[in-house]
Amino acid sequence: MISQDTIVALASPSGAGAIAVIRISGNDAITIAASVFQSVSGKDLTKQKTHTLHLGHIVDGSKTIDQVLVSIFKGTQSYTGENTIEISCHGSTYIQQQIIQLLLRRGCRMANAGEFTLRSFLNGKMDLSQAEAVADLISSDNEASHQIAMQQMRGGFSNEIAKLREELLNFASLIELELDFAEEDVEFADRTQFNDLLNRIEFVLKRLIDSFAVGNVIKNGIPVAIVGEPNVGKSTLLNALLNEERAIVSEIAGTTRDTIEDELVIGGIGFRFIDTAGIRETKDVVESIGIRKTFEKIEQAQVILYLSPLTPKGGTLTDENIAQVKIDIERILNQFPLKPLVVIGNKRDLLSDEEILNLKSKIPNILLISAKNNEGVDDLKNQLLSFVNTGALRNNETIVTNTRHYDSLLKALDEIQKVKYGLQTNLSSDLMALDIREALYQFGTITGQVTNDELLGNIFANFCIGK
Amino acid sequence: MISQDTIVALASPSGAGAIAVIRISGNDAITIAASVFQSVSGKDLTKQKTHTLHLGHIVDGSKTIDQVLVSIFKGTQSYTGENTIEISCHGSTYIQQQIIQLLLRRGCRMANAGEFTLRSFLNGKMDLSQAEAVADLISSDNEASHQIAMQQMRGGFSNEIAKLREELLNFASLIELELDFAEEDVEFADRTQFNDLLNRIEFVLKRLIDSFAVGNVIKNGIPVAIVGEPNVGKSTLLNALLNEERAIVSEIAGTTRDTIEDELVIGGIGFRFIDTAGIRETKDVVESIGIRKTFEKIEQAQVILYLSPLTPKGGTLTDENIAQVKIDIERILNQFPLKPLVVIGNKRDLLSDEEILNLKSKIPNILLISAKNNEGVDDLKNQLLSFVNTGALRNNETIVTNTRHYDSLLKALDEIQKVKYGLQTNLSSDLMALDIREALYQFGTITGQVTNDELLGNIFANFCIGK
Repeated sequence: MISQDTIVALASPSGAGAIAVIRISGNDAITIAASVFQSVSGKDLTKQKTHTLHLGHIVDGSKTIDQVLVSIFKGTQSYTGENTIEISCHGSTYIQQQIIQLLLRRGCRMANAGEFTLRSFLNGKMDLSQAEAVADLISSDNEASHQIAMQQMRGGFSNEIAKLREELLNFASLIELELDFAEEDVEFADRTQFNDLLNRIEFVLKRLIDSFAVGNVIKNGIPVAIVGEPNVGKSTLLNALLNEERAIVSEIAGTTRDTIEDELVIGGIGFRFIDTAGIRETKDVVESIGIRKTFEKIEQAQVILYLSPLTPKGGTLTDENIAQVKIDIERILNQFPLKPLVVIGNKRDLLSDEEILNLKSKIPNILLISAKNNEGVDDLKNQLLSFVNTGALRNNETIVTNTRHYDSLLKALDEIQKVKYGLQTNLSSDLMALDIREALYQFGTITGQVTNDELLGNIFANFCIGK
Repeated sequence: MISQDTIVALASPSGAGAIAVIRISGNDAITIAASVFQSVSGKDLTKQKTHTLHLGHIVDGSKTIDQVLVSIFKGTQSYTGENTIEISCHGSTYIQQQIIQLLLRRGCRMANAGEFTLRSFLNGKMDLSQAEAVADLISSDNEASHQIAMQQMRGGFSNEIAKLREELLNFASLIELELDFAEEDVEFADRTQFNDLLNRIEFVLKRLIDSFAVGNVIKNGIPVAIVGEPNVGKSTLLNALLNEERAIVSEIAGTTRDTIEDELVIGGIGFRFIDTAGIRETKDVVESIGIRKTFEKIEQAQVILYLSPLTPKGGTLTDENIAQVKIDIERILNQFPLKPLVVIGNKRDLLSDEEILNLKSKIPNILLISAKNNEGVDDLKNQLLSFVNTGALRNNETIVTNTRHYDSLLKALDEIQKVKYGLQTNLSSDLMALDIREALYQFGTITGQVTNDELLGNIFANFCIGK
């Protein structure tokens, strides 16, 4: 399975920048790099120590392509576990292309997506769930998903699974040993201890399986439908929510971020805002289609945020306004009785104290804010965060975010429960051994002790090139 | 002028990738990095040698931000000439931001555009024209502009200038010495030798000034107007020209390139194609405006490429067709007698041998090609390249591409010619000394021996952040 050829890829993001990094890994990485590198001090690259940096030029015959810094990582001490070279060159795409083309001509081949990390796994530098965490880490764009990926990459999740798997393996061996002495009706495996272990495993598996719901929310963000008529101030509200986060982002020049009005990170959790056209009934046919679409969109959301048009032009709040808002709210609650709903009244600054009192008496749950003056925005954030069960996150517990792992955990739990049932019903050792084997297999697929080419292909195809 | 604070910036292109590189430079670079870095082997970063790499984690208190590789470059051995740290982290923008924010809190400040290279210049690691070449190198997107930037970065241009400046400085000292002995009418500076030097300087300056026209073309591409009616096959032609180059680009996964139909690199030289609406006269007023616009666009081009509609639907070539093409050509030549014109007949494959003979007898210069079958496309490329004076490029001569340098060279030439005239007319030593000083000043502005804050500000503001 382990291919011995030498692979190359751009490891830094594509495009132009101050510098770019090209990565080479494989048996011949150092000799191929040495064949195109001239050290400024005349050093021979093949004779340098691991973890050292060397200034020089990449040359193609008499043509100098660039002045570069070359990093050397030898054998097991590299990321991949093979000889690895990183070339830090000037960031023009032309130079990147020239250097990669030259390396291809000298015997490298283009790396596949995730191939560096695949090699790291195949060379025993990390287990499979850690390798998968690398991809999660690279794609993490908020604190929560980053924290989970970091924890998984450091082995938090797979250590737990591996430990249980080992204990289970011990019992499996003992029970299989009993098969050899079937005639004699001996029990090497202590059934009470075994039952305890199964209970422990069941408990851990259930916790991990339950964590997937939280993990999924953290990884993909929580969908929030914003219900409100056009021009009611939806984007002002989103801007107010985004304000602090954006300030931090724009402080760092060079890390520009596109304005995506419908994706926000609040308190480290991603929220995906789904804009709707409102739910006011009209006689207009086009508008009616709009209401149906609004309801369809709310269906996909986990939380509903209703932005009331409480301060029409002129700024006076009439009882008629309030009555209309109550109709809207009722309509939403009738349609979606189980979805959490936040009712917001914006432009609190335009209301008099009497109006506020009147409003609160009629719609007690209303959250009055002023997006413009940044008043009440923190309350809204806290309310949104309260819908996320971040307890596990705060307690630094292991959270499962990977669908593949979730699937294996479910199957493992199923097998463990079969074994438990077998134990209770005095199932014969040979049949029980089969169920244990199956549970062990499912554990193994998570950490990579059990793999096949198809599985690996699926996992690493989701990586970016160069990692 | 040299600020002693420690600067930080993202050095790799912005966006997500396998890895990203964050660069820190300044007195405290190593101690600041050490304060957020935990080596996996427990090493103290401040005690490591220059040009070494260290695996560990970036930590913010108890929170681990990422597993990273840290490179150390000490003092004068770094790019900037100051202590420098490069952190190679996972390429998520979230991680990049977290690490940079942490470093800002620990006492770094965000680097300005080009500030690393500015420090390199201020610390005497490179002269000003070399520093400017770094920016050119990063933005180079074809072989010719890359080659010129490489040559300049390696000092080709400034070495030549610096040598002449030194020789001129010697004579200046001798002539200024004469001023101290003005009463005695002595001549320390040999006037014949001095005249020889001035002639040499004049020759070099003129060559460099002349090279600017070529340099400008190479840096910015050659504008080529494509004249042809709509649907005559302009984009088929551009695709045929682009064909080979694009294949090379797309071979390297991860370096995607946007399709810009009007910019091609042919033989290492950039060509900018300007699409026009054709020049056929009609009675339609809108069309007449079209023709005026076509002529306006041709005005901006250096080369005209006329794509004839020789094979109308049905495929038969009539004498009327040919006559019409001749009218087109004549109209272009009347309007632009000095611009090189290439007349192209596409779809050669649809013409019979007789038709080709007839056509060539009536329009001898026509270049018959078949974009579809890739016939004659190389001839067209060679013809386009023949309009570029690449002699200097091939002979590895110094080429000036920078408007600021061009400006200084023109002024220096002016002063040198004044000195020459002064020598011929026996101008007094004191007046001649003034002109020599002015020429020396102009040389100095190129290499950076003469600078001021405003000049440096202008130059480095054009750099990207992180370089």
